[in-house]
Amino acid sequence: MGYSRYNREELIAAVSAGMPSKRWKHVEGVMESAVLLAERYGADPVKADLAALLHDLAKFWPIEEQEAVIRDNGLNTELLRHDKQLLHAEVGAFISQRDYGVEDEEVLDAIRYHTSGRERMTLLDKIVCLADYIEPGREFPGVEKIRELAETSLEDALIAGFDSTISFLLEKGKPIFPLTLLARNDLIVNRTKPREAE
Amino acid sequence: MGYSRYNREELIAAVSAGMPSKRWKHVEGVMESAVLLAERYGADPVKADLAALLHDLAKFWPIEEQEAVIRDNGLNTELLRHDKQLLHAEVGAFISQRDYGVEDEEVLDAIRYHTSGRERMTLLDKIVCLADYIEPGREFPGVEKIRELAETSLEDALIAGFDSTISFLLEKGKPIFPLTLLARNDLIVNRTKPREAE
Repeated sequence: MGYSRYNREELIAAVSAGMPSKRWKHVEGVMESAVLLAERYGADPVKADLAALLHDLAKFWPIEEQEAVIRDNGLNTELLRHDKQLLHAEVGAFISQRDYGVEDEEVLDAIRYHTSGRERMTLLDKIVCLADYIEPGREFPGVEKIRELAETSLEDALIAGFDSTISFLLEKGKPIFPLTLLARNDLIVNRTKPREAE
Repeated sequence: MGYSRYNREELIAAVSAGMPSKRWKHVEGVMESAVLLAERYGADPVKADLAALLHDLAKFWPIEEQEAVIRDNGLNTELLRHDKQLLHAEVGAFISQRDYGVEDEEVLDAIRYHTSGRERMTLLDKIVCLADYIEPGREFPGVEKIRELAETSLEDALIAGFDSTISFLLEKGKPIFPLTLLARNDLIVNRTKPREAE
């Protein structure tokens, strides 16, 4: 398919070799859901597939290695002060570019922000982030509601996804990554604007 | 008591005249709880009483007037983009200084951050913010649990207070003020640090 210096089969072989088969099954689910969402909401399905394929490539790297990649390459060191689960997204975007030759910024951003979200998410950001919540293998309280919302509104579904993450962290008494809150606020404000203008 | 250019009775007369009697009853409750918490946790009860007395002085001002005070006096205009309920705290601190002659920065900050919280809250910030959650007249889901926590930990009680605010806004689908999240995260990180070090 020519979107990187490797073809799709080579990327699949490389990424799936770096994680347990259960996690690879999750990645396949995210690819499937991301392509469906791209078709539904008018994004490029090839980009959605590629970002989904690569989004968790660093998920099972040792944390110290993820931290080292961030420190040694001038990436976002702010992440080092937060939950370790956030690191693999930043690392995944960097490795996708450096080692897999992906140059499409939209794809790299969708990988970079798939866990945290961000303000002013692109269509592809939203699709990969939401696909990660709703892929067929996911089971958590509220996932059915999010899948239902995803049928009609990308933004409403994503807000519900972020709500479930924030609620979970509230219940666990854990810190909440500020960017996730900003992503949710931004989606809400931009969703309600047209209604206010009516 | 000489803590402002007015005595306590004059301040009470001025503040209570600017709000419905029901709200004044709330202020009296916050004064009572703030003094109790100050005695319990080693803060100055006179400062706690003063900050509580003044904390809601602008609560019933017309919103346009609150916005004008913020705009015309170089205050935190970031607040204008958020929930209107946040404005009265900033305005209250400004008016306490300009019109009531309060110069104590600790008291002014406790007024300024009583609704939002902030990172690195002072002891007095925490006391006034928590008193506002648990004063005897307050009734909301979870308030009893917060009152119970307040018996033994100012920080745990305040985290539970912020949790209740954030949950409420999640349920209502409303934006969450980022500073409140940062305040909660900061309390959690600094609470868990000593435990991790054990």
